[in-house]
Amino acid sequence: MTKRISVQTPGQGLHDITRCVQAVVGESGATEGLCSIMVQHTSASLTIQENADPSARHDLEAWLSRTVAEGDPLYTHTHEGPDDMPSHIKAALTSTTLSIPIMDGRLALGTWQGIYLWEHRHRGSARHLVVHVGP
Amino acid sequence: MTKRISVQTPGQGLHDITRCVQAVVGESGATEGLCSIMVQHTSASLTIQENADPSARHDLEAWLSRTVAEGDPLYTHTHEGPDDMPSHIKAALTSTTLSIPIMDGRLALGTWQGIYLWEHRHRGSARHLVVHVGP
Amino acid sequence: MTKRISVQTPGQGLHDITRCVQAVVGESGATEGLCSIMVQHTSASLTIQENADPSARHDLEAWLSRTVAEGDPLYTHTHEGPDDMPSHIKAALTSTTLSIPIMDGRLALGTWQGIYLWEHRHRGSARHLVVHVGP
Repeated sequence: MTKRISVQTPGQGLHDITRCVQAVVGESGATEGLCSIMVQHTSASLTIQENADPSARHDLEAWLSRTVAEGDPLYTHTHEGPDDMPSHIKAALTSTTLSIPIMDGRLALGTWQGIYLWEHRHRGSARHLVVHVGP
Repeated sequence: MTKRISVQTPGQGLHDITRCVQAVVGESGATEGLCSIMVQHTSASLTIQENADPSARHDLEAWLSRTVAEGDPLYTHTHEGPDDMPSHIKAALTSTTLSIPIMDGRLALGTWQGIYLWEHRHRGSARHLVVHVGP
Repeated sequence: MTKRISVQTPGQGLHDITRCVQAVVGESGATEGLCSIMVQHTSASLTIQENADPSARHDLEAWLSRTVAEGDPLYTHTHEGPDDMPSHIKAALTSTTLSIPIMDGRLALGTWQGIYLWEHRHRGSARHLVVHVGP
């Protein structure tokens, strides 16, 4: 089963999509298998991160945005705005696809793990993902 | 087939888990297919790296630990110790899931590739992984 | 279906392999499923990136090569040349495996996404990949 889903991001940062992905797994009826997720953009990405303390996500965003700075004189790809080239680099350093085993009808995530769509542009937008559930 | 495995890490660094993963593939009886691995933690991660010269793994650890330094004044998520927030960032920069094709009953790794569980905390601990073998 | 493919890289940088991978999907006859790709090297990697403006790929390479510099006194793994240890680090920071859903017989990539083999050595060479198409 393959399904497209769309998620409206409120802006730069990590946005929890665990429930959306689990809903597709539930819909598929699979009790065991593999759930693969792909984000169809190059200025947003995916990560599995700590779902407990929001400060961990805040620091992740702050560290990555300082490391991949806007306005770097190295950039030549600047016509789509100052947050565009950093977005592509951030996407390359994190993940565009993830594959999560399914056990007992649920994503086999650890207790403190959530799946996050990481928006790298300042302005949020409708982001498209494809979720595949296989045997 | 989906199986949980646990690996005791001796401490920070890359620990070879190729044999553990290959053992699950062997147990599954699959001759061709896909083997997916997920680590159920956000302060440890996965990587496929050079399995020949230990100095490459040493330098990987040294480079990443210098780049994602402890005690960075940027961190607000500090209550779990100085190596906790760097661990989350290191996990985000490397991989939480990997999917490796199976050929002739074996992981189709290159000659110099091994699968590593990358412990980012100073103190080693029992780390849980889920291995899925699909068609 | 699992197939080995080889790609000759012209040298350091991102090389588009979307057509090669789509050709394997076409050959498999799959209309829906999951396509997983693995590069069998630790000094080259994979990324899904913007396929429109070549300046984005240029800046990605420039940023990563500045961040993971050659000649860093930290390196002890130096006997294979100055571009070897940076190659391993760059591979660890990007991806060795990718899993892309298939819809209507095609890789479900976004409009601006291409699959790239990222050569990290100065000198190009024949790079081996394994492509798996599953249900």
